[in-house]
Amino acid sequence: MSIRVGIMGYGNLGRGIECALKQNADMELVAVFTRRDPKTVQILSENVNVYHVDDAPKMKDEIDVMIMCGGSATDLPKQTKEYAQYFNVVDSFDTHAKIPEHFAAVDEAAKENGTVAMISVGWDPGMFSLNRLYANAILPSGSDYTFWGKGVSQGHSDAIRRVEGVANGKQYTVPVETALERVRSGENPELSTREKHTRECYVVAKEGADKAKIEAEIKNMPNYFADYDTTVNFITEEELVKNHAGIPHGGFVIRSGKTGWNEENNHIIEYSLKLDSNPEFTASVIVAYARAAYRMNKEGQKGCKTVFDVAPAYLSPASAEELRAHLL
Amino acid sequence: MSIRVGIMGYGNLGRGIECALKQNADMELVAVFTRRDPKTVQILSENVNVYHVDDAPKMKDEIDVMIMCGGSATDLPKQTKEYAQYFNVVDSFDTHAKIPEHFAAVDEAAKENGTVAMISVGWDPGMFSLNRLYANAILPSGSDYTFWGKGVSQGHSDAIRRVEGVANGKQYTVPVETALERVRSGENPELSTREKHTRECYVVAKEGADKAKIEAEIKNMPNYFADYDTTVNFITEEELVKNHAGIPHGGFVIRSGKTGWNEENNHIIEYSLKLDSNPEFTASVIVAYARAAYRMNKEGQKGCKTVFDVAPAYLSPASAEELRAHLL
Repeated sequence: MSIRVGIMGYGNLGRGIECALKQNADMELVAVFTRRDPKTVQILSENVNVYHVDDAPKMKDEIDVMIMCGGSATDLPKQTKEYAQYFNVVDSFDTHAKIPEHFAAVDEAAKENGTVAMISVGWDPGMFSLNRLYANAILPSGSDYTFWGKGVSQGHSDAIRRVEGVANGKQYTVPVETALERVRSGENPELSTREKHTRECYVVAKEGADKAKIEAEIKNMPNYFADYDTTVNFITEEELVKNHAGIPHGGFVIRSGKTGWNEENNHIIEYSLKLDSNPEFTASVIVAYARAAYRMNKEGQKGCKTVFDVAPAYLSPASAEELRAHLL
Repeated sequence: MSIRVGIMGYGNLGRGIECALKQNADMELVAVFTRRDPKTVQILSENVNVYHVDDAPKMKDEIDVMIMCGGSATDLPKQTKEYAQYFNVVDSFDTHAKIPEHFAAVDEAAKENGTVAMISVGWDPGMFSLNRLYANAILPSGSDYTFWGKGVSQGHSDAIRRVEGVANGKQYTVPVETALERVRSGENPELSTREKHTRECYVVAKEGADKAKIEAEIKNMPNYFADYDTTVNFITEEELVKNHAGIPHGGFVIRSGKTGWNEENNHIIEYSLKLDSNPEFTASVIVAYARAAYRMNKEGQKGCKTVFDVAPAYLSPASAEELRAHLL
């Protein structure tokens, strides 16, 4: 029998989950939940119903894992702990500073109700976190480096669009290749914010807007752009739609460390992602951890878990014997 | 109280374990065991005794984890299951085809005696296996690629040294950069053995030896060199000692996969290692898994485990709270 999955929230991430489930024969989408009028939500799957969120608790016995696809700012802090009362849940909560608080609240709800709640699943937090942990455990004497991109930052794109005179815009975070090379060489450099990433903006100006003023305002925006070398390119709406419609992302986690009696040998561990679609990749990670959540709960586990708590074998549909024979 | 570790076998790997333990404050080397006369074995640590292997079982209560540092061909198939009777053990058994058989034998011994026995720990098998598993679970529709090097292959170096007229030699396995680039581009190429790696040999010929004959014999050697583009460089013993004394290695595990309703988006997951010292890095991985073996056993677990069975948090000396706050 396949693992029955529900999707809570149907935006880019929810649609990504729907696509990922199609690639996993041991899992099955059974329902999508929305705060909108369900009749207005068109999903890709045939023969799967869309329900209002209020109907979710009634489907407690029909869903093995509920995947939470809301945002980290306001949705997940409320929803994950709420639905952990009824279901095993997985979320992609990504406000790094608030993870301990979110963990505590979700852990309580999950333990009380005997469910497994997997939080902060995706690639950062998620696969990048795992790689930081593995590399730190292996090389205790060393330095960590995380670079993001090349990819679209939603927050920075939103910031551009709030500038007066801007009709539309998109921002790419770009890792500085020379900084990457210095890290890979084992030099262990101390890198400033400006030395690690540049920011590339593609901006559609409103008719008659003062482009020099827009450019200056973007480049000097505190927190978002002032600490970076930023380039601003003015393009037409047509060009934006044609050349910048995707949501690519990616990045690099590198640990440079020493071993030897006198730490005479250097080692570089590098993990990198190059993603055509940030939400679809995030969704693919989440679906693998949904499988793990279901299995761990079947074994009697409960409470809040992160990627650090999940033995890798739980993620694969293959048996332990198959994994040892073919992937080890 | 720190985790008390024993080292069984004191070659390159055993010495690497000794160095790695020095970097981990929660672990402590308490004894080294050898088949040689213990008096002839000089170790780096002060105040640690060297014992004959026959004395190991007597130290059952003084050692929390025994790290097996013998070879995969003849030592580990006998030793790991034998010492799993007395200790939690970790080995680096790397004969991929025989892992299921080794697992079964070790599992029986460990389960009977209530110990945890972690096998095939290192980087391949080990970290590379983990990355294959994670990437396959995340991207079920895709292709796997593993490249090794640039690094010294002990087996191929030995093969060179067996050729008539050869006094000494060293072989580097080198990944083909253009093949790596084709994989990273998302092309999903089918690559032949010859297209993936080249082999570089540095050979010291005996005086008066026929170099052309040596070169031809190496290049045509079945299994080892015939399927590769091989270069043979004749050098002096002094050059070999000066420029080729190290044991560097490394490699790349790449998965290229598709997501999307019609698999329209491509993703590349890449994990790579660049290691100055293959045995010291392998040792560093093993020491992290020795910590895990000890903790899992403390929690009541027993039997044979591989890297697939170990939740990442067990590897780090930091608490779950610290990990969530700082690495997630």
